[in-house]
Amino acid sequence: MTEYSAIHDYEELELGDFRLQEGATLRGAKLAYKQHGEMNNDKSNVILYPTFFSGTHQDDEYMIGEGMALDPSKYCILQVNQLGNGLSSSPSNHPEPYDQGNFPVITTLDNVRAQHQLVMDYFHIDQLEMVCGYSMGAQQTFQWAAAYPEKMRKIVPWCGTASTTPHNYVFLEGVKSAITTDGHWQQGFYDSQPHKGLRAVGRVYAGWGLSQQFYYEQRYLDHGFSSLEDFLAGFWEAFFLQKDANNLLSMAQTWQRADIARTEGCHSRDEALNRITAKALVMPCETDLYFRREDVERETNCIPNAECRPIPSIYGHFAGIGFHEEDTAFINQGIKELLETSVD
Amino acid sequence: MTEYSAIHDYEELELGDFRLQEGATLRGAKLAYKQHGEMNNDKSNVILYPTFFSGTHQDDEYMIGEGMALDPSKYCILQVNQLGNGLSSSPSNHPEPYDQGNFPVITTLDNVRAQHQLVMDYFHIDQLEMVCGYSMGAQQTFQWAAAYPEKMRKIVPWCGTASTTPHNYVFLEGVKSAITTDGHWQQGFYDSQPHKGLRAVGRVYAGWGLSQQFYYEQRYLDHGFSSLEDFLAGFWEAFFLQKDANNLLSMAQTWQRADIARTEGCHSRDEALNRITAKALVMPCETDLYFRREDVERETNCIPNAECRPIPSIYGHFAGIGFHEEDTAFINQGIKELLETSVD
Repeated sequence: MTEYSAIHDYEELELGDFRLQEGATLRGAKLAYKQHGEMNNDKSNVILYPTFFSGTHQDDEYMIGEGMALDPSKYCILQVNQLGNGLSSSPSNHPEPYDQGNFPVITTLDNVRAQHQLVMDYFHIDQLEMVCGYSMGAQQTFQWAAAYPEKMRKIVPWCGTASTTPHNYVFLEGVKSAITTDGHWQQGFYDSQPHKGLRAVGRVYAGWGLSQQFYYEQRYLDHGFSSLEDFLAGFWEAFFLQKDANNLLSMAQTWQRADIARTEGCHSRDEALNRITAKALVMPCETDLYFRREDVERETNCIPNAECRPIPSIYGHFAGIGFHEEDTAFINQGIKELLETSVD
Repeated sequence: MTEYSAIHDYEELELGDFRLQEGATLRGAKLAYKQHGEMNNDKSNVILYPTFFSGTHQDDEYMIGEGMALDPSKYCILQVNQLGNGLSSSPSNHPEPYDQGNFPVITTLDNVRAQHQLVMDYFHIDQLEMVCGYSMGAQQTFQWAAAYPEKMRKIVPWCGTASTTPHNYVFLEGVKSAITTDGHWQQGFYDSQPHKGLRAVGRVYAGWGLSQQFYYEQRYLDHGFSSLEDFLAGFWEAFFLQKDANNLLSMAQTWQRADIARTEGCHSRDEALNRITAKALVMPCETDLYFRREDVERETNCIPNAECRPIPSIYGHFAGIGFHEEDTAFINQGIKELLETSVD
């Protein structure tokens, strides 16, 4: 419904009749992905990079490039768009009867299973060099490592937890209610976007996305915004006005349900984390207000071969989104170090 | 418009044609207050206790009673309802042309000046024993002490800052947008409350009002709620569904503009705080997400005769609202100690 990408710069994998964890079957499901760089002969240089809430692979490309850790001249980087994001199967592009307000519930494991089809069944990759991602991309990374421990050597999840905390769930209730309060949303069966609701998402999100200190120091002035109100309208409202309301709701629902304890054969979050064999570098931001450092540290302590390295930044959750060069450089350095480490 | 109080248990002071700081004149303005206990002969035992966002004096009465620090057998406690709260002049009760969506902007200093009329002109009290309050009540307390330093001996503001921080301002943008997104709000000229918007306020506020740890420990189960969803609907939605939408917007606007630097003759927040001569006990909650301990400490350091004593609690901002007995006892003890201290 919404034009996400001016350039069709990605490929699509047909997933067939894709059975979802909560019961529905998404007939003719599709996974959109973009490949950067070439696979080497034994396909041992592949890095999988899933997307975050509201974003597409294009929004993650700040982390990829020659000279960066994710260097396409050395690695084959597969960016995979999560279901619901508008490029892979989503409320905005799926045919009836599972279209718009009737798009079924997607779980983090559904995303991981779809990506597993791409990596294992389509590309026949035996083992990934790394899975990495930001925010919901971090959640998919953790879920990959617990569901298929032997399928990757390394993981770098940043600004995300394996399981969504109850408070994070509550914050997302506020985000969702901003959309559903707009009468134009019409239970998801709208002809045009509920603009007021999308603007409200921006205002609700603004307090969560960046830290108290960021606003105190008026750091938005460093990013081309002329006042606080200009940042709220010119950045936050504008950001969400580009999105499809149902897609946002679908991804928020996936995020709310993220729970690594639901991995098959596991009985708890800690048990699932303990299964991870990949060498892990986990990077929360010190001032993240919803994927908090302390929550990430608690989880990281359950992973056998892991380091938790907080990003020292006042950019809160936005430290990980490519908004602030210093933070991007810090994350890049972490990925680089881990890629240079040999794992037996 | 909304029936706030089943019992008319308060008095009203006619403020006359009340000139507001930002220019409008509220003709026939009223200040609603409730007196507990009697004034002694020299009127030296009077405590002023202004209300918080969305609340009336009834919501503050948990802090008053025999055996409590605010003991009506010893003190005369004057509870004053802030403008916009539905009992004092408000969008919901003021006549045209300043009714509903056209109610003018109220500042913290407007509230303090209206209360000054009650205390000084009507009751002829020379000096208050104490001014105290929670949240926006704390903001009024700080403003009293800076605007009229000689008019009270002691102050106890809890869970509030003298000036609203930029991030706190942003959080309130989210709260306001939850209401204004509901088409039934109609720019404030509604015939019945915008219920969807009020519910959304509840969902947006839920993540801010209580701490991460509160939700992690499912502490709502201790308060008569059977699940997280039951707490979101049964407490948060129900809480705001009782309120008038325009009144909430008016108070949120007052809160957003709270800035003690605007005190007459002052050039900065720190200068205004430095003017305060009252002995001050300032009590932030350790886990408050918007009136944060560090922000309160920074301000308290500018007050000459002040102690900052954080409330050790996981109840966040709700530590101060009478929701959790231990926190109420902690605040009560602080007020008691200060009342027992003699001041020259």
